[in-house]
Amino acid sequence: MLVVMRDHASQDEIQHVVDLLQEAGAQAHLSGGEIKTIIGVIGDREIVYSLELQGLPGVEEVIRVLKPYKLVSRDFKAEDTVVRIGPHAVVGAGDIAVIAGPCSVESEEQMAKTAAAVKAAGATMLRGGAYKPRTSPYAFQGLGLEGLKMLRAAADEHDLPVVTEVLDVRDAQTVAEWADVLQVGARNMQNFMMLDELGKMGKPVLMKRGLSATIEEVLSAAEYILKGGNRDLILCERGIRTFETYTRNTLDLSGVAALRQLTHLPVLVDPSHATGRRELVGVMCRAGLVAGADGVMVEVHPDPEHAKCDGPQSLTPDGFSELMESLRPLIELQGLRLGWT
Amino acid sequence: MLVVMRDHASQDEIQHVVDLLQEAGAQAHLSGGEIKTIIGVIGDREIVYSLELQGLPGVEEVIRVLKPYKLVSRDFKAEDTVVRIGPHAVVGAGDIAVIAGPCSVESEEQMAKTAAAVKAAGATMLRGGAYKPRTSPYAFQGLGLEGLKMLRAAADEHDLPVVTEVLDVRDAQTVAEWADVLQVGARNMQNFMMLDELGKMGKPVLMKRGLSATIEEVLSAAEYILKGGNRDLILCERGIRTFETYTRNTLDLSGVAALRQLTHLPVLVDPSHATGRRELVGVMCRAGLVAGADGVMVEVHPDPEHAKCDGPQSLTPDGFSELMESLRPLIELQGLRLGWT
Amino acid sequence: MLVVMRDHASQDEIQHVVDLLQEAGAQAHLSGGEIKTIIGVIGDREIVYSLELQGLPGVEEVIRVLKPYKLVSRDFKAEDTVVRIGPHAVVGAGDIAVIAGPCSVESEEQMAKTAAAVKAAGATMLRGGAYKPRTSPYAFQGLGLEGLKMLRAAADEHDLPVVTEVLDVRDAQTVAEWADVLQVGARNMQNFMMLDELGKMGKPVLMKRGLSATIEEVLSAAEYILKGGNRDLILCERGIRTFETYTRNTLDLSGVAALRQLTHLPVLVDPSHATGRRELVGVMCRAGLVAGADGVMVEVHPDPEHAKCDGPQSLTPDGFSELMESLRPLIELQGLRLGWT
Amino acid sequence: MLVVMRDHASQDEIQHVVDLLQEAGAQAHLSGGEIKTIIGVIGDREIVYSLELQGLPGVEEVIRVLKPYKLVSRDFKAEDTVVRIGPHAVVGAGDIAVIAGPCSVESEEQMAKTAAAVKAAGATMLRGGAYKPRTSPYAFQGLGLEGLKMLRAAADEHDLPVVTEVLDVRDAQTVAEWADVLQVGARNMQNFMMLDELGKMGKPVLMKRGLSATIEEVLSAAEYILKGGNRDLILCERGIRTFETYTRNTLDLSGVAALRQLTHLPVLVDPSHATGRRELVGVMCRAGLVAGADGVMVEVHPDPEHAKCDGPQSLTPDGFSELMESLRPLIELQGLRLGWT
Repeated sequence: MLVVMRDHASQDEIQHVVDLLQEAGAQAHLSGGEIKTIIGVIGDREIVYSLELQGLPGVEEVIRVLKPYKLVSRDFKAEDTVVRIGPHAVVGAGDIAVIAGPCSVESEEQMAKTAAAVKAAGATMLRGGAYKPRTSPYAFQGLGLEGLKMLRAAADEHDLPVVTEVLDVRDAQTVAEWADVLQVGARNMQNFMMLDELGKMGKPVLMKRGLSATIEEVLSAAEYILKGGNRDLILCERGIRTFETYTRNTLDLSGVAALRQLTHLPVLVDPSHATGRRELVGVMCRAGLVAGADGVMVEVHPDPEHAKCDGPQSLTPDGFSELMESLRPLIELQGLRLGWT
Repeated sequence: MLVVMRDHASQDEIQHVVDLLQEAGAQAHLSGGEIKTIIGVIGDREIVYSLELQGLPGVEEVIRVLKPYKLVSRDFKAEDTVVRIGPHAVVGAGDIAVIAGPCSVESEEQMAKTAAAVKAAGATMLRGGAYKPRTSPYAFQGLGLEGLKMLRAAADEHDLPVVTEVLDVRDAQTVAEWADVLQVGARNMQNFMMLDELGKMGKPVLMKRGLSATIEEVLSAAEYILKGGNRDLILCERGIRTFETYTRNTLDLSGVAALRQLTHLPVLVDPSHATGRRELVGVMCRAGLVAGADGVMVEVHPDPEHAKCDGPQSLTPDGFSELMESLRPLIELQGLRLGWT
Repeated sequence: MLVVMRDHASQDEIQHVVDLLQEAGAQAHLSGGEIKTIIGVIGDREIVYSLELQGLPGVEEVIRVLKPYKLVSRDFKAEDTVVRIGPHAVVGAGDIAVIAGPCSVESEEQMAKTAAAVKAAGATMLRGGAYKPRTSPYAFQGLGLEGLKMLRAAADEHDLPVVTEVLDVRDAQTVAEWADVLQVGARNMQNFMMLDELGKMGKPVLMKRGLSATIEEVLSAAEYILKGGNRDLILCERGIRTFETYTRNTLDLSGVAALRQLTHLPVLVDPSHATGRRELVGVMCRAGLVAGADGVMVEVHPDPEHAKCDGPQSLTPDGFSELMESLRPLIELQGLRLGWT
Repeated sequence: MLVVMRDHASQDEIQHVVDLLQEAGAQAHLSGGEIKTIIGVIGDREIVYSLELQGLPGVEEVIRVLKPYKLVSRDFKAEDTVVRIGPHAVVGAGDIAVIAGPCSVESEEQMAKTAAAVKAAGATMLRGGAYKPRTSPYAFQGLGLEGLKMLRAAADEHDLPVVTEVLDVRDAQTVAEWADVLQVGARNMQNFMMLDELGKMGKPVLMKRGLSATIEEVLSAAEYILKGGNRDLILCERGIRTFETYTRNTLDLSGVAALRQLTHLPVLVDPSHATGRRELVGVMCRAGLVAGADGVMVEVHPDPEHAKCDGPQSLTPDGFSELMESLRPLIELQGLRLGWT
């Protein structure tokens, strides 16, 4: 951490900061020019992040050089993390995940059709929402436990692992009984109590980036889960909130490329939620893979016109099948492979 | 709801939309020009929000005219909602709340000093965090239940109601035992399960605006709580995330003015979190009151230099006392009063 | 400037940065911990801002502590700048400007009515657009020179100074012949050639903040004008672009408060453009003044329903008159005065 | 255009809107439900964009269905526009442009080395800045006319067309004498007078997206140029301003995909400016091409460490050569080709 003092800060102001640092157990190194003094602070992460020096007399700026995360960083672990889900699916280090399925589980028939179609086209995992976070209380909220069971049954029929969201921390155990991957939705990325809980469970977690979360915040949230002991974490970029309204959100692919450099964890992209427009899903899946994503997450519905949510961005089974055909040569060109063993 | 068809959409495409609407129980009214046809949709909120027509062949845009909320709206209830907290405190309809206290509860002594000081200066409620949401898992996370007890004791000593955050839905009952107002933090504004739970509890709720929540989303989240049966809801603007980094967030005072027109619920401002800079807190409290806010929420710490969080933006007791002196003439000028009876 | 090296950067990498710094005429001061080395750079603004060290081997981050501006800063000049416009109008150091008039000059009659009305209500300057920046080429683009003449005539009739925008640097001289204050629009705030030109002219300039300009960029743009020799510069916050769409832009009043601390230049607010909604203009003028603004800029049209632009946010003469009545007690309460001598 | 009236708007309010519409020469079609009346407006673009109905009594919302642009739209011209630059270079309809060169022209030697290197690696055009827009007036501002000449000479030596920015509308003719493509920088995208001027010139134009410009605003700005008579326009996405600071801006690749659907004009990506980080440039070029971009614009400098601007994001000649090698198979896979005949 660096404490940049204001121009011509007084000796007393400088000494005061130094005293506070030493009191807290950190070391202070002064480097002064004619106009400015800068105080370098050395101490461990826990101490540095407990110091609150901004706003002290004479302090212009406090710059944290030490990152608020450690375990998730490539500096800590250089090689890609590989997450195995069930006996066959795998993601990371060149294994590409393709997670497909409807926004919400609506019926056995819907799930049976979807699972059959996505499996046939080459998906490696089945997704579906049983508990749905909806902006309006007047919108469809999901089938709950019944939905989980339908999802599981359809997945088992086709030997696919299940990915589904934990909307309420109180449901985490229940969801874990029926699902293979526990998803943290964008709106819960900074629900730290849920992150704590998922860090203690023995199931892979897929954590979506919050709508207005910086890359540093994504990695800090991820740190909660790894710090809890769970190493099987997959990240997912799903669009950030910007001023642009043509697309529902803005898919931050340079964020994906950056995450791949900063962390060893696998990173997926979800163009369905990011764009909110079916006609952009395929092209952004392809761009995402080329940007370095370890996989894609795509909404597929057998009958999007009657979907209870996210119809506008859902692919039909045929559309998904075409998408898969377009992904294969790109995967091959980059020396990667579908994550299925 | 309006469905705007693409230029020269075919009769089949138009008819298909009409069929889907009627199937769902909504009425369709066509109004066609030479180039464009627009379909007006009439139906109840639940139906309209379950329709997913964007992305259908021939559909250019779907415009929702019906708002995703109802109970929170001024159209539904014209007069200001007044929320009473304990025997004395009141907010809304001209009664101004002043909620003051530290970011986190740290010790009995800290709370005793703070409560005495803010009470003496004129605060109407005491705040303090027992469970702290922290971006980094390496930062101080709060004292938990012990903190709640310290907060309660200090407040009782000075006859002040207690405002504190429910960070985990599983703690809601516990927090309700010790607090008078249950706060929903910005990161939980779209934690819909928590909103549901708080909607069912018989305690006033203070809900902060999410960092990237639109005004419509704030009102939709508020609708969850009112729909659950709880009418005692206070909103709080605490800064939105923008590209500007000089202030921690951007305090959206035109949003406050807009909320005051759109909803009957009281709206506070929290300049401490919004600006992250002590030197801006006072002036933005004053501007907030003039923008129409029903009160302010301010961080006060007896010794900000040693605060475990948010030191840079905390006022000292003296600073808070000066702030109160500056607020009184503004409150009077506008024909309002401190919310204490 | 600080160069933060990556953890365990090599001696060669560190030395290489030091060599480059010395070569450029700057001094390098090393402060190394066990893990990190940080290089403090001392040199003059011109040198420091010509260095491009980010991206060098071993460099993690380059932090510029020296601001990209100097003349506009309170550190350079502590007392408020006062700008005099014509024989009577004045802004800064407690003198409050009220600039009112239509979005665009449309006719002699429109301007005569407006000037009479705003003068009567207490405005200190008349605004009006002769050259209009319009997003769509199909929208009304202004009357040009004819408009300037109408604006001047109406202002002279009521002894008001004229504020109008220079849309094209080639028109700067012409506009200067007819106007008292040359306005730089938000879309031209980083049109550096225009800033250069206006820096050399002997007329007061009113520069609006760009829609996505940070406070640092506002001050850097202002520096261009002062560096050119023109000290008569007025800044104006007119809303920044955020994700919120209920208001046209987000009026950044904490930005105003911050600017007042960082610079000696006067700062106005323009709630008409910021909110795009007539019903929010008055309240945000008042909040702006309390946030520290040195004045307001307001759109007034004798017949908003027939305005050629910005009708929805224009006040009627009566509305403006009411606004003025509401401003007076606030101005007085703060110990300020209308800027008219 | 649709005018959505407030719930239970009065007959008078509705009639008043209808009268205004008819007065302006537009047709009004009412479609009323029990609660809401919606007025459909039919008229030509010029009329519709001159109407200002928001804010009228009883009006809740005005929705413009008619886009503020026409000539740039795929609805107006379905097939891809192909822009030819000089005898060999071509972009659009499958021809991929690769524009490479330094941020700023610094010396003959620098340009000679760069031109030789990028030509050898396969670039189809040479870029370089003679007039530089710089946030701080203390930063290097470019060599001006001398720079143009150096750029031209280096390009001629290697038979490459020249792309360079027109920073000041007064220099447009001069720049046109020395360059083949006139670039409009991001900060000038809404400098409408410059757009007007470039619309009248007989040279291809490359227009960069503004930092906070929506897709609709990009297309409206493009419309200015086409409306002036110049059909040879190339668009370029170069990152938008968001809350994320790890990358300098956020490269909006779903915006590129959207633009390719909405307009017939070619669209490039500039990952150098968007990311501000050399290590992300290559991967984002590749992702950009897969997202549908018609080419890339890349900063290359023979000695980035000594570059006068944008060193951190400039590729070395070797780095650029590797990039080109990585682009070729992607171009081929998609059935495209380098735009050089």
